[in-house]
Amino acid sequence: MSTAPDPTRRNDAVRRAILTAAIDQVGEVGYAKLTIERIAKSAGVGKQTIYRWWPSKGALFFDAFLDLAGDGEAAALPDTGDLAADLKLVLGATVDELNDDRLDQAMRALNTEIVLDPALAADYATRLDNPMRELKKARLRSAQQAGQIGEDVDLEVAIDLIWGPILNRWLQRTAPLTREYAEQVVETALRGLLPRER
Amino acid sequence: MSTAPDPTRRNDAVRRAILTAAIDQVGEVGYAKLTIERIAKSAGVGKQTIYRWWPSKGALFFDAFLDLAGDGEAAALPDTGDLAADLKLVLGATVDELNDDRLDQAMRALNTEIVLDPALAADYATRLDNPMRELKKARLRSAQQAGQIGEDVDLEVAIDLIWGPILNRWLQRTAPLTREYAEQVVETALRGLLPRER
Repeated sequence: MSTAPDPTRRNDAVRRAILTAAIDQVGEVGYAKLTIERIAKSAGVGKQTIYRWWPSKGALFFDAFLDLAGDGEAAALPDTGDLAADLKLVLGATVDELNDDRLDQAMRALNTEIVLDPALAADYATRLDNPMRELKKARLRSAQQAGQIGEDVDLEVAIDLIWGPILNRWLQRTAPLTREYAEQVVETALRGLLPRER
Repeated sequence: MSTAPDPTRRNDAVRRAILTAAIDQVGEVGYAKLTIERIAKSAGVGKQTIYRWWPSKGALFFDAFLDLAGDGEAAALPDTGDLAADLKLVLGATVDELNDDRLDQAMRALNTEIVLDPALAADYATRLDNPMRELKKARLRSAQQAGQIGEDVDLEVAIDLIWGPILNRWLQRTAPLTREYAEQVVETALRGLLPRER
């Protein structure tokens, strides 16, 4: 075994230091005022090192967010057979994540970049949103096959009805985002707005 | 009658020129790269004139957006007695507005500022979002009183289920935002995801 420095491992360490610095610093000064220079200083690297890997602040935060989200989010949704309970569990975890002060600024930053930058939005769709949507759809398809969701329901629309309100309330700060609200959204989406049959 | 210049009227004209320049210029260079200087030059005023009225680019765009939205949006929602048809009409108009290239950049800019700035989000809620929500709630309450929406449905959640997916698809560019999608959202929200009673 060699004790010579491994350049790949060193690159990994530097990359990780930069991503951590990005998250730390956005929490301190906010996304709008955060400069690449400040992130570089905090990570103990030169600005050029950052620009070698990331063309923009948006691209850097995109990787920082993927890094934070980790592989845990790519796991299949729980499927106990109780659709409402499973959805409440998943949305409850999302609510906790969106209310995490440490993640809040980074996630808002990422969302801002996506809103303004079609190329980043496409990248986000490919690398994170589409895989997540497939997992959501798989859970809803399982429910549809079990006769718990109407056969004629478009599952893409169903995903938007369940997850859309959560993301919106967080983004727009319409009102506090709570687990209770998430449960109400699940129940209302499942049963619909129409009166129950008498 | 006097023919002396009316300072109030002159101020109004200058204010309007600045708001128009803001919308024109954001369409040309995008929000991120747009400077107050560029807006000032386009409006034919000094930077200080803009800063006298607006503390930031976000505040300026907020007024520009209110100006664009006009008073038309503050009108009550149609109430023909056919809830689904009325909602499809309203959401269809929203879809057209969100797909308007001239408004797109300005509305994305405003949304970005709201996501990042809690103070602006509060101002937005007071001046635009809350009044709009009250109009939406009034229409849904009328439907609830007519027995077309379940008595136990929380109308705040109902609003989020109907309008949330539209705004989200536009913001996230998940897929093209079409009138057909808006109609699907209305139908699915009304009937819910559960299978119909046999």
